[in-house]
Amino acid sequence: MKILVTGFDPFGQDKVNPSWQAVDALADAIDDIEVLKLLLPTAFKRSKQLLVSEISMQQPDAVLCVGLAGGRSAVSIEKVAINYADAGIPDNDGNQPKHEKLDQKGPAAYFASLPVDQLLQALHAHELPAELSLSAGAYVCNATMYQLLNYLARQNLRTIGGFVHLPFTPEMRHEDQASLPLAIDEQTLGVIISSINHYLKEEKHD
Amino acid sequence: MKILVTGFDPFGQDKVNPSWQAVDALADAIDDIEVLKLLLPTAFKRSKQLLVSEISMQQPDAVLCVGLAGGRSAVSIEKVAINYADAGIPDNDGNQPKHEKLDQKGPAAYFASLPVDQLLQALHAHELPAELSLSAGAYVCNATMYQLLNYLARQNLRTIGGFVHLPFTPEMRHEDQASLPLAIDEQTLGVIISSINHYLKEEKHD
Amino acid sequence: MKILVTGFDPFGQDKVNPSWQAVDALADAIDDIEVLKLLLPTAFKRSKQLLVSEISMQQPDAVLCVGLAGGRSAVSIEKVAINYADAGIPDNDGNQPKHEKLDQKGPAAYFASLPVDQLLQALHAHELPAELSLSAGAYVCNATMYQLLNYLARQNLRTIGGFVHLPFTPEMRHEDQASLPLAIDEQTLGVIISSINHYLKEEKHD
Amino acid sequence: MKILVTGFDPFGQDKVNPSWQAVDALADAIDDIEVLKLLLPTAFKRSKQLLVSEISMQQPDAVLCVGLAGGRSAVSIEKVAINYADAGIPDNDGNQPKHEKLDQKGPAAYFASLPVDQLLQALHAHELPAELSLSAGAYVCNATMYQLLNYLARQNLRTIGGFVHLPFTPEMRHEDQASLPLAIDEQTLGVIISSINHYLKEEKHD
Repeated sequence: MKILVTGFDPFGQDKVNPSWQAVDALADAIDDIEVLKLLLPTAFKRSKQLLVSEISMQQPDAVLCVGLAGGRSAVSIEKVAINYADAGIPDNDGNQPKHEKLDQKGPAAYFASLPVDQLLQALHAHELPAELSLSAGAYVCNATMYQLLNYLARQNLRTIGGFVHLPFTPEMRHEDQASLPLAIDEQTLGVIISSINHYLKEEKHD
Repeated sequence: MKILVTGFDPFGQDKVNPSWQAVDALADAIDDIEVLKLLLPTAFKRSKQLLVSEISMQQPDAVLCVGLAGGRSAVSIEKVAINYADAGIPDNDGNQPKHEKLDQKGPAAYFASLPVDQLLQALHAHELPAELSLSAGAYVCNATMYQLLNYLARQNLRTIGGFVHLPFTPEMRHEDQASLPLAIDEQTLGVIISSINHYLKEEKHD
Repeated sequence: MKILVTGFDPFGQDKVNPSWQAVDALADAIDDIEVLKLLLPTAFKRSKQLLVSEISMQQPDAVLCVGLAGGRSAVSIEKVAINYADAGIPDNDGNQPKHEKLDQKGPAAYFASLPVDQLLQALHAHELPAELSLSAGAYVCNATMYQLLNYLARQNLRTIGGFVHLPFTPEMRHEDQASLPLAIDEQTLGVIISSINHYLKEEKHD
Repeated sequence: MKILVTGFDPFGQDKVNPSWQAVDALADAIDDIEVLKLLLPTAFKRSKQLLVSEISMQQPDAVLCVGLAGGRSAVSIEKVAINYADAGIPDNDGNQPKHEKLDQKGPAAYFASLPVDQLLQALHAHELPAELSLSAGAYVCNATMYQLLNYLARQNLRTIGGFVHLPFTPEMRHEDQASLPLAIDEQTLGVIISSINHYLKEEKHD
């Protein structure tokens, strides 16, 4: 069993991105699931290409994309990705789509195929600050989640996928904005991956 | 040309619902579009039944549903409704769906078919506090919007539809929560309806 | 009877300051109180000098300073000003005090001498979004309020004084931040000044 | 050298209070400073009596009061306590003062005499989510801080004192509200006490 976990590089004014810091710090295996790590660029087009190419080569059982949602106060498990891009700032390749569809022929949205409710229960059982989110925004994070689920659906793959947003970290020094220590992010991702592993095994038994 | 505009009755701890207060105060015609008003119950099932029945009888050119989103600080134009119900409190009929689909066979989501971007531009031109929202939540408001758009799509109707959320009003006295005066809500709905009328006429010319 | 009402000029990234826009739009008399208007620079030292000089010349019965508190969602009536300056950005003269006292020998704080509770009651009776605030921050607004009350106390004047913070307006286009239309600000200042007038008259009768 | 650290019992709807949970979990000595712990009732009058009595008996070098500030997203170091009580809900003895002074003859406010800026620097150096707060509210927390500093000033004691607010914890399950894990609270109090110890020693050398 293996899981592909992705994080993003820094964007906008920030010098670090906790999504990659937390992913990069993960062990190479958690319980008995192999953890493959991939750094994605915060760029609408390249993130999709890199992600699809890696899934196609690695054929993981699950894909967990991790991003930054500055201003949120808890780790959020995303429920849905929408076919919509509307960027407040240019991405790292200078692209800034406005009021656009991500896939002209794609459906309006996809629900995460990760066991979202089970992940939340596991995080709450560990007293970690986590919540369900009904919007992944309209920037590169939502686009990556949509294109991940669109690809898995189009290719008819059994791989499950989803997205998790992390808050700012204290070291990013966004005054008057919520933040969580990176150690909490790392612990959170560990619990999530362990729960996904558990879910995959149960599914196999069915 | 006619538009059906709906508001909800009070729910939870509140004694009033500004969505119906603001709708109820609308003139019977704005510019030259006829305004039909409908009070919906804050109830997952009955709101759908009443709405569908009224659309079927009245055959309006547009449907604008209005609801309350306590805690938000601006009027929000909803972009998308999702096939998901997860109620924090029981609705006015005592139902409290958890982690459920609204329509087992329906798509994950529908985008509003109202001209969302034009509405926002018009509101900003009038210096009114309005924003695009990417989530209508998972309570009766989202359910009503989803079922409206699901019905219009299934019936292949040319009617356009969408949803607008209003903040608390000061008279609701939710301490430490944002609010907007009802007069601003009324002015906002007027601008929205006028813009929808304008859009419908241009569309007809095409 | 006369009241001196002040607003500030724009600072930081903003091109306008609703505090001066709203003050500038006031009538020259409200009920039977004369309204004197004064534009203050968003500058720690000059705002104090100008304000003190104007009070000394005009000898008003009340002083109402108005400022901008970006991010707040309601008009806030300030309860207290503290002897502390800690500027996140330079003021309009390039000064940026950090962790400093405003007056080395002054007390830690002054309470507003305006009838704060009566102002709130009047605003709520008019269904306007208003709240009591327990902190005016540590920038020019708090400094102006502290120095106003410090001056009135040191000079043993009967003049009453206080401070009101206004939210962003929609025209300022601070995305994802609360805002209130300027018309609401103007209406709010009108109710406040009328209530202060009423209070001054009752006081005189005593 | 010894420090008295206090936490509060649960109040309102909550079954736990992280302020006492975190204080209770502290070691009996941190570095070489002795840590005395005291549970205070969330009650305007009794908290003051108990605190004053304990200080008088123990004569600590520093007093750190810790409370809960639901809704905040970071640990906040309070700068100032004001002579004002205005309770939104009754305290645990059923008292609910409204618009009242805490001490009819006391000054408007006291600044914390703990080295606030040094504490923040230490917390940031440890990548912990901490911020300066300019208002401790108008409930029992502010009252306790005011009466602590009022007592120390009136008695002319050299003891330094201040207040720290903790956010909700995830186990409290306040949906849609920020929270921090209790482990972070404990780590934060440890850094604060260690920094106070360091400060006290430097002071003694002067």
